[in-house]
Amino acid sequence: MSRKYSIGVDFGTLSGRALLVDVKSGEEVATAVFEYPHGVIDSVLPDGKTQLGADWALQHPQDYIDVLKEVIPSVIKQANISPGDVIGLGIDFTACTVLPIKNDGTPLCFLEEYKKSPHAYVKLWKHHAAQKEANLVTEKAISEGEKWINRYGGKVSSEWLLPKVWQTLNEAPDIYEKADKFIEAGDWVIMQLTGIECRSACAAGYKGIWHKREGYPSKEFLKSLDPRLENLVEEKLSSDIFPLGGKAGEINEYGARLTGLLPGTAVAVSIIDAHAAAPAVGITKPGKLLIIMGTSSCHIILGEEEVDIPGMCGVVEDGVIGGYFAYESGQACVGDHFDWFVKNCVPAHYLEDAKKQGVNIHKYLREKAKKLKVGESGLLALDWWNGNRSVLVDADLTGMVLGMTLKTKPEEIYRALIEATAFGTKIIIDNYTQNGILVDEIIAAGGIAEKDEMMMQIYSDVTNREIRISASAQAAALGSAMFGAVAAGSKAGGYDDIQSAACAMAKVKDVIYKPIKENVKAYEKLYEEYKILHDYFGKTGNEVMKRLKAIRESAQV
Amino acid sequence: MSRKYSIGVDFGTLSGRALLVDVKSGEEVATAVFEYPHGVIDSVLPDGKTQLGADWALQHPQDYIDVLKEVIPSVIKQANISPGDVIGLGIDFTACTVLPIKNDGTPLCFLEEYKKSPHAYVKLWKHHAAQKEANLVTEKAISEGEKWINRYGGKVSSEWLLPKVWQTLNEAPDIYEKADKFIEAGDWVIMQLTGIECRSACAAGYKGIWHKREGYPSKEFLKSLDPRLENLVEEKLSSDIFPLGGKAGEINEYGARLTGLLPGTAVAVSIIDAHAAAPAVGITKPGKLLIIMGTSSCHIILGEEEVDIPGMCGVVEDGVIGGYFAYESGQACVGDHFDWFVKNCVPAHYLEDAKKQGVNIHKYLREKAKKLKVGESGLLALDWWNGNRSVLVDADLTGMVLGMTLKTKPEEIYRALIEATAFGTKIIIDNYTQNGILVDEIIAAGGIAEKDEMMMQIYSDVTNREIRISASAQAAALGSAMFGAVAAGSKAGGYDDIQSAACAMAKVKDVIYKPIKENVKAYEKLYEEYKILHDYFGKTGNEVMKRLKAIRESAQV
Repeated sequence: MSRKYSIGVDFGTLSGRALLVDVKSGEEVATAVFEYPHGVIDSVLPDGKTQLGADWALQHPQDYIDVLKEVIPSVIKQANISPGDVIGLGIDFTACTVLPIKNDGTPLCFLEEYKKSPHAYVKLWKHHAAQKEANLVTEKAISEGEKWINRYGGKVSSEWLLPKVWQTLNEAPDIYEKADKFIEAGDWVIMQLTGIECRSACAAGYKGIWHKREGYPSKEFLKSLDPRLENLVEEKLSSDIFPLGGKAGEINEYGARLTGLLPGTAVAVSIIDAHAAAPAVGITKPGKLLIIMGTSSCHIILGEEEVDIPGMCGVVEDGVIGGYFAYESGQACVGDHFDWFVKNCVPAHYLEDAKKQGVNIHKYLREKAKKLKVGESGLLALDWWNGNRSVLVDADLTGMVLGMTLKTKPEEIYRALIEATAFGTKIIIDNYTQNGILVDEIIAAGGIAEKDEMMMQIYSDVTNREIRISASAQAAALGSAMFGAVAAGSKAGGYDDIQSAACAMAKVKDVIYKPIKENVKAYEKLYEEYKILHDYFGKTGNEVMKRLKAIRESAQV
Repeated sequence: MSRKYSIGVDFGTLSGRALLVDVKSGEEVATAVFEYPHGVIDSVLPDGKTQLGADWALQHPQDYIDVLKEVIPSVIKQANISPGDVIGLGIDFTACTVLPIKNDGTPLCFLEEYKKSPHAYVKLWKHHAAQKEANLVTEKAISEGEKWINRYGGKVSSEWLLPKVWQTLNEAPDIYEKADKFIEAGDWVIMQLTGIECRSACAAGYKGIWHKREGYPSKEFLKSLDPRLENLVEEKLSSDIFPLGGKAGEINEYGARLTGLLPGTAVAVSIIDAHAAAPAVGITKPGKLLIIMGTSSCHIILGEEEVDIPGMCGVVEDGVIGGYFAYESGQACVGDHFDWFVKNCVPAHYLEDAKKQGVNIHKYLREKAKKLKVGESGLLALDWWNGNRSVLVDADLTGMVLGMTLKTKPEEIYRALIEATAFGTKIIIDNYTQNGILVDEIIAAGGIAEKDEMMMQIYSDVTNREIRISASAQAAALGSAMFGAVAAGSKAGGYDDIQSAACAMAKVKDVIYKPIKENVKAYEKLYEEYKILHDYFGKTGNEVMKRLKAIRESAQV
């Protein structure tokens, strides 16, 4: 029997990537990436005229189609295999990344009449302009005693489905009206490939306030928010939600033309990008915290039961691995943070020096920052450039750096930003352990985990835990390919459950980052300071960040 | 009778400058500047080996001699006049800038055996390493009920004479022992020129805890600090302190060789640089606040009586203008702030753009920052990169910026730093007016006041006061030249008092910055936020800045 393959396609914030994997060994045979031509649309629509407000972040769904057209044929070609040897396809996607569509799947922004309507486009996960709606949902849920709010850390994020859809209703009721459905982009891609609307329990559970046993929030609750939302689920969503690890459908004629795969190829139920990485690094039971470190960070850990954790993003039964409750937390600004810094705050002579040395500027800054002792810079930062997801669940928070003197150097600020994200991670871990979810070890995946040894050592020192690294540079895509292999099933040469797939295909590197005792001790002191500032600015000590944001918004009018 | 001239020499932080002025009209005939070859010595001694600790800032007294040699002959030559037409010379200097000398005036650092001893050099005003001593002096003064502490805002700054001298005694008792005297650099320059030790009441009053009626702190108090300090005044300083507006002496043979001036030329009692600017802009009575804006800012205002103002730097009777009490406050980091930003935080493409446009980077940033509406950036900063002089008198405070998002731009941070210094100024003004010292109008001098229209408008909007600008780009030097003319007296073609000199020679520009109502209102809100953070970080809300500094110092060991 010839070798069989599965393909995972990972849709990130800026690009889509395919990974073609040998189903037996997990060997990564070929990969291809395609950057979204429209990128993140955050200031003006593609017409070049229609301006967007602060905190908007849209995408163009044509970019997702272009990814499929580009990367799947590319990996098949690179591997020099026959499409018939690909037994399954898995899709992972950022979430909640949601768009309004017609019944046939056509995005409203494809229609001439809506091209200039911002609400007709995809609202990307980091679209934060529905904060008002998020606040109202939270307030109402608390005042009405809605139990589901506790599954989401006691706070509804502006990144989730309900605030985003409600914002559309409030600001563009015609778009809401004309939309037959609102759908997660991951599910929409599945629909393009198979013709079938198969909504994933993963996205619905984490981002759509859906629960395996209790379903969506009640009609009464939705009505209490806005009478027009009473029948939201029936009218614009769906109650048919499909468990992870299942088959969504098979590639249809249109999907085959798009991708070059054979009609009938199994397609897995879609999964959120970060979550897909868990089985890829072999996480199939509690105790190991997965951190996907990219533009933002996402933390996944399994638990034996459903506990309410304040400030987590969500807990979903069978959300990643059947039989366990998968808890998710997040940090909204990690790689984004360093990119912002490099674009806006690095002096010319550093760039020149880096160029002379032939290293990229991040590596250059890291080399300088590595030489600093813990605490030597005197700096402390709050890593909230993109708001705070866990544990404060507050997109209106902003960044802070403190401790600058006239001798402060760029690499010191850079390191303080890294440390701030590590402290943010420790807040999340402490929050889990204080609530009975054990975190014995960390496994990190994503580009930063792979490349940035200094950062991983800082994380190990700050959290006082060993850290292992995903052996795949594309853990999400590998996880998706594993789900693709499960969708195909053992008869087709795949697997019957994700545990078996993980057993054969998962992998971590040999390197282990171990906490350095002296640094652990030094960071404990700095972490105490971080916590004081975290609570002062993040809770009710001084809501200056929110007031400044309000001033900013009124000034921008 | 031929035209008569006076020369003012202004010794700043980085350079010395001479201004040759027509005594009758105040016309500025010639100017020359000389940068200190050693600059600010803050990391390693001139031997290239001896490292300095954090917060050290030294200078080399040879640089001051080199200034005299260079700039005085230069202005005489430029003006094409005879040295005999120069009737007087005035010197202003940063303070407290103090050095240990032998009885003949030789600085200890000129002696071979002390060249590698940091304490043998000049301690520059911004040498902040005597904070421990400053804290002890403050504590002891409060516990002993010393009344003089109230004249200095209730706190002794590490920038002043007593902490600096005591630090020398503590860390280098041999230097203390070998020093016949400690002297202000301004008085030392006078000594070089005239051979006479003539200590200025201005420096002694503001920086030496000396009072016209009460003298220095008592022997008992000094002994209570350290038994070895009991006879500090008699042993290392002097009780002969000379009033401002007087003649220190006349150029002697050595002074004539140095400067090209004729022996016998009148030399005025030295004055602190900022204070010299007051008569230069015509301030001879209460109500008008002078702000000298340079690397740091200094604020001078006259009052009818001696009031204790919390957090001011000092009040000295006849300290600037005879018959009035001159109050001084300060902000430790103004121009320094922007220079730090430009050196450390401006991205390469901004520099390239500025170069293409042929403007300097400050101007480039200002042009971008000018377009922002008040509050539009969402940023707020605390301007404490170099500690806080007034009203907190705390060199251990550090900088803070808050409100960053991924869309924050360099010009927004730049503007926030400017605004922070304006808010700091408003804190000082509010502090005066709440204590009965009226501030009706502001007159600004110094390079920034002259060049930065945006900044002056922001200051006007934040303080809600009209601002006029010194017509002289060298207000301190002009003031010194006026004191030189007074030292010469009317018989020699000068004046008999500083009021008469000011009447003839002082000048402000025609331009007046007026508060813009809309901005005043918007800044009121931001100022409320600044005040909350000012008190939280600067008083006892959260002493994180001090703890981080302590951690930093222990990490650097």
